[in-house]
Amino acid sequence: MESFPDTEERLTLEELRETWPVLSAEERAEGFALLDRNDALDFFLTLSPAEKKQILLAIPEHEGRLWMCLLPPDDAADVIQAAPHQFREKLFNFLDEKTRKEVHALLSYHQDVAGGLMNPRFARLRPDLTVDEAIRYLRLQAQDQLENIYYIYVLDEMQHLLGVVSFRELFKAPPEKQVREIMESDIITVTEHQDQEEISHLFSRHKFLAFPVVDAERRLKGIITADDILKAVQKEATEDIQKLGGMEAINFPYMQISFFQMLKKRAVWLAALFIGETLTASAMVHYEQEIARAVVLALFVPLIISSGGNSGSQAATLTIRAMALGEIRLRDWWRVIYRELGMGLGLGLILATIGFVRIILWENFFHLYGPHYFLIASTVALTLVGIVLWGTIAGSMLPFVLRRLGFDPASASAPFVATLVDVSGIMIYFTVAAILLRGTLL
Amino acid sequence: MESFPDTEERLTLEELRETWPVLSAEERAEGFALLDRNDALDFFLTLSPAEKKQILLAIPEHEGRLWMCLLPPDDAADVIQAAPHQFREKLFNFLDEKTRKEVHALLSYHQDVAGGLMNPRFARLRPDLTVDEAIRYLRLQAQDQLENIYYIYVLDEMQHLLGVVSFRELFKAPPEKQVREIMESDIITVTEHQDQEEISHLFSRHKFLAFPVVDAERRLKGIITADDILKAVQKEATEDIQKLGGMEAINFPYMQISFFQMLKKRAVWLAALFIGETLTASAMVHYEQEIARAVVLALFVPLIISSGGNSGSQAATLTIRAMALGEIRLRDWWRVIYRELGMGLGLGLILATIGFVRIILWENFFHLYGPHYFLIASTVALTLVGIVLWGTIAGSMLPFVLRRLGFDPASASAPFVATLVDVSGIMIYFTVAAILLRGTLL
Repeated sequence: MESFPDTEERLTLEELRETWPVLSAEERAEGFALLDRNDALDFFLTLSPAEKKQILLAIPEHEGRLWMCLLPPDDAADVIQAAPHQFREKLFNFLDEKTRKEVHALLSYHQDVAGGLMNPRFARLRPDLTVDEAIRYLRLQAQDQLENIYYIYVLDEMQHLLGVVSFRELFKAPPEKQVREIMESDIITVTEHQDQEEISHLFSRHKFLAFPVVDAERRLKGIITADDILKAVQKEATEDIQKLGGMEAINFPYMQISFFQMLKKRAVWLAALFIGETLTASAMVHYEQEIARAVVLALFVPLIISSGGNSGSQAATLTIRAMALGEIRLRDWWRVIYRELGMGLGLGLILATIGFVRIILWENFFHLYGPHYFLIASTVALTLVGIVLWGTIAGSMLPFVLRRLGFDPASASAPFVATLVDVSGIMIYFTVAAILLRGTLL
Repeated sequence: MESFPDTEERLTLEELRETWPVLSAEERAEGFALLDRNDALDFFLTLSPAEKKQILLAIPEHEGRLWMCLLPPDDAADVIQAAPHQFREKLFNFLDEKTRKEVHALLSYHQDVAGGLMNPRFARLRPDLTVDEAIRYLRLQAQDQLENIYYIYVLDEMQHLLGVVSFRELFKAPPEKQVREIMESDIITVTEHQDQEEISHLFSRHKFLAFPVVDAERRLKGIITADDILKAVQKEATEDIQKLGGMEAINFPYMQISFFQMLKKRAVWLAALFIGETLTASAMVHYEQEIARAVVLALFVPLIISSGGNSGSQAATLTIRAMALGEIRLRDWWRVIYRELGMGLGLGLILATIGFVRIILWENFFHLYGPHYFLIASTVALTLVGIVLWGTIAGSMLPFVLRRLGFDPASASAPFVATLVDVSGIMIYFTVAAILLRGTLL
């Protein structure tokens, strides 16, 4: 504990924040205890669920109870979900009776659907109140811990959602009007099991601060706000980016995941790609005789397969992101293939030209490639058109295939596509060579 | 116009949404005109700035004026920014006098800083009002078009920000108290020029719906809400993902960018990577004699360079995302290198083991690699340890170097790192081979 030698001393918020990322759970709890009460409150509320859990389990139980009760039900549920199974019961029992029920309901949902992200507390009104009565009634409700009273939901006695009224409208309305008359009844709702990605599209399309979450009978279960979705969107983007980088989603901040967990998440994909890539060795064996006869062919193998991989990676990345943003749907695959055919051909011709010119120039200056340099340049150029076209088509279609089969399209990572294209790249190259160089080099 | 043959007929919202992505600007405007008035309003507000601009420029001018006036100033500014230069003046003149001033102020900011994202309209109070007076005063303000009156900002007569009070607090407070007594004066503010990425960190750390944007003298300039940031975060993630996929950020939905714009954005990087990759051919020429003597060495070149590329891509992706999320800062580079050293060694040993076993097994079954297969397997395994270690270090450090030099770390794409590692991979491989195989194969 060399960082905090004197427990009598208070720690400032800045001091703790500075060292925080590199502290162990025990050191964090100890540092946390050294904050003054107000700082501690500010600090605690800004921690991630996993960090809150660390603190709550490391401090004395009666204190853990106090801190836990400060959290709204959706945050409390996140904390419990961040804890290992054996500690969930303990954290759960920190809650008061009412919150425990709400959290229990939230925990029954999957973490990334509306039900798992929503806040079960919201402001409600009956349709037959007058505006003046409604404002007085809301004042009472505000005593209770309502995270969000910006939209007020109008419910019948069975909790069915009839309409919504914003504070702004309530304020603007003549005091004697009925809530029914000023409410908006044409509402965009979200169902309990709707995925966060769909909900994020709703938020980016509509300027609402919250959407109501309803069950199959249109009973209001909770509300979901833009900040809940902001976190979910960041998490989703991080997962997609990590998958695109060729590994499993890490789900922890870089500095906090243990070495061996990280190693495992990276090794699994890397090993799978490696095993896939050993097929290139098998393909090359097939052309061993050609290489022995014309070693010059081997020189361009890395250049050719990487061009296929790069163009495939571009196409896959574009398609995956456009899918995630809802810009293209599964049934649009033919529009994509139509466009990528032209794109692959265009890109292939550009690279082929550069490659051709490069070989001719180098031959003129350095005389590296022997008497048949023109044929070699043609072989490389023709192969490049083929491999870039194929990489582009394969890269753009793989996400569709994966999604169709029920996998995450983001698994069509740059390394995955590259591996897929590498083997075919070798085959295309040596086939083109066999045709163009027959009778000369081969 | 075969999609809408009869102009007398009304179009439903669903019909238009269905065909929307593939329509030209003129067809869109025509389809839009066929919606009934209420649907048109709903539809218009959910369009992206670029789509709004298309419609506004294609419909008759007096209608354009009407639609433009429906937009809050920040959205109007986005629409103007989405238009080509020659049309901006025209759109600008659609606005009323007051909004024109506000939009003018917004347009002076860069698009992805607080000033360019904020809404300049907000609810304000003087500190010496009583709670009851404040509520009555806000009712008046609500008549005006205020997008957000969930937080109310307390300002002095010079517009300096003194504090904030939420509706909830205002409602809970005793009616005779002064606003000054119930306001929160310890506020997290955002400065005009603060980057969207930093602001998104604030939103994910704090459960606020909006942050006040202040200038250097702490005068309140506007407010920024979670949905503004949600859009910015999605855009930023898309740009990062596209850069990581090895191309320029596209900045348009996949289906809407023109073929040649898209080709250009992809060809530039692809050509740059290709030219970088031609260095592999130069490196290979260097080892032409070794390949001629031991063709078997050429078989494993794709396997080895792709392993370096894949491990580099993993490390770069992880580092770039952790930087974007603020989990690691520039000065943490030594923590990252320390960790990635161990990671690279671990991953390298895993792949080396698989590679070694694969070669030994295949030799036993298929007798492909000749009498020195054990030495070849050792060469490949040792090279793999080196190349994976090197790929991991290079991939994790490149984003730091790019950021230090003032570039976007996300440019350290999987293809970029792979290209960087490929050349060194070839050199490592043939150097190891020269040492291990001297006197036998070489």
